[in-house]
Amino acid sequence: MSSHHIVRDDQEPALIIANGAECSKELMGQLLEWSPLVIVLDSAIERVINLGVKVDVLLGDFDRGLDPEQYREMQYPLEIVYTPDQDKTDLEKAFDFLVDRKFPAANVIWATGRRADHTITNITNIVRYRDKLKIVVLDDHSKIFLLPKKFEKWYPASTPLSLIPIGKVSGIHSKNLKYELNNDELTIGYRTGSSNEALADGMVAIEHNEGDLLLMECFD
Amino acid sequence: MSSHHIVRDDQEPALIIANGAECSKELMGQLLEWSPLVIVLDSAIERVINLGVKVDVLLGDFDRGLDPEQYREMQYPLEIVYTPDQDKTDLEKAFDFLVDRKFPAANVIWATGRRADHTITNITNIVRYRDKLKIVVLDDHSKIFLLPKKFEKWYPASTPLSLIPIGKVSGIHSKNLKYELNNDELTIGYRTGSSNEALADGMVAIEHNEGDLLLMECFD
Repeated sequence: MSSHHIVRDDQEPALIIANGAECSKELMGQLLEWSPLVIVLDSAIERVINLGVKVDVLLGDFDRGLDPEQYREMQYPLEIVYTPDQDKTDLEKAFDFLVDRKFPAANVIWATGRRADHTITNITNIVRYRDKLKIVVLDDHSKIFLLPKKFEKWYPASTPLSLIPIGKVSGIHSKNLKYELNNDELTIGYRTGSSNEALADGMVAIEHNEGDLLLMECFD
Repeated sequence: MSSHHIVRDDQEPALIIANGAECSKELMGQLLEWSPLVIVLDSAIERVINLGVKVDVLLGDFDRGLDPEQYREMQYPLEIVYTPDQDKTDLEKAFDFLVDRKFPAANVIWATGRRADHTITNITNIVRYRDKLKIVVLDDHSKIFLLPKKFEKWYPASTPLSLIPIGKVSGIHSKNLKYELNNDELTIGYRTGSSNEALADGMVAIEHNEGDLLLMECFD
């Protein structure tokens, strides 16, 4: 059975469109094709609608004078979720929404670029959803996700792989990386594993004992 | 004496052009005007030359087959600095170069955007230069720098100010922020001070006891 015959259901990742830089239409199209639910963060809505995307959920605190009701008719059916909590970013609220709805996974686009504070917050905050939601942040140069304590995946030789510790991460072991880690410790700002790569075609294994470790598959 | 009569000297920040997304010509022009030295990281050189910028130092490991000698004549005088150390990023090598040359400060552009691993590494690695070099990372939406333990600066009301801890930062106190901090602790990935703002026109004060705290002045 080819992948094109798999029935869409809620086991596929939901797609969250945040408010950073737009990605290529090609990347967006690939993700939209399989997404059972599209959530847009409030201030991105105009840009998304202009691209002709059907939105399922419009979520945010609507604190910039945006009236969400104006989109109900043109995007029918549209669920509008008002989330006034000032202690969370709109992206975290979207993650919480998906956890409540029992979604297992989310892809996130437009979460990087433009404001650096939003970029770094969006990327690093995924660690707190470790056991709740499988999150992948994507842009035209990057695919970012939190590593489980034991991780294995097949990569072609020389695939760029960056290990970015969010805080301090200890007890890191790797197999099949160009710069192997052997019970190493990485600390954000001081020692990161950026710009590593798969050594040979085959399984790359990365384990760690303590802390939150992101893997970034990036390309120029 | 107006600022236009200040004599240029090496006390002005050097300008480092990294290899991320290009900033606006306006921002680059402002920074070039006062910069006593322009350093370009190796793989950005073609893009920089195409903008008609005079480069003083070309620095990198030239590991992608780039022959730096070809630029010597068209950029005369050009200092070529070969830095093969694989344990440091090219941006860190540029910081080290400036420290060696006794520069007190550097502005960095093109350090964000494109690859997320480079963006997060470039931004967070400035903390290790705390006592060596005053670094400001700039793009079209962001101005980023490491806070000293005691910081004061005048801001107009509602200026967006994001406090981003690189690791864990404790004992944070603020004055004149919309969401004040009072002996608070921030931890990257778990609790950040993103999207705060100046409460009223006037001095904003931010103090902290332990850890590395970035301030990001960002705008849409």
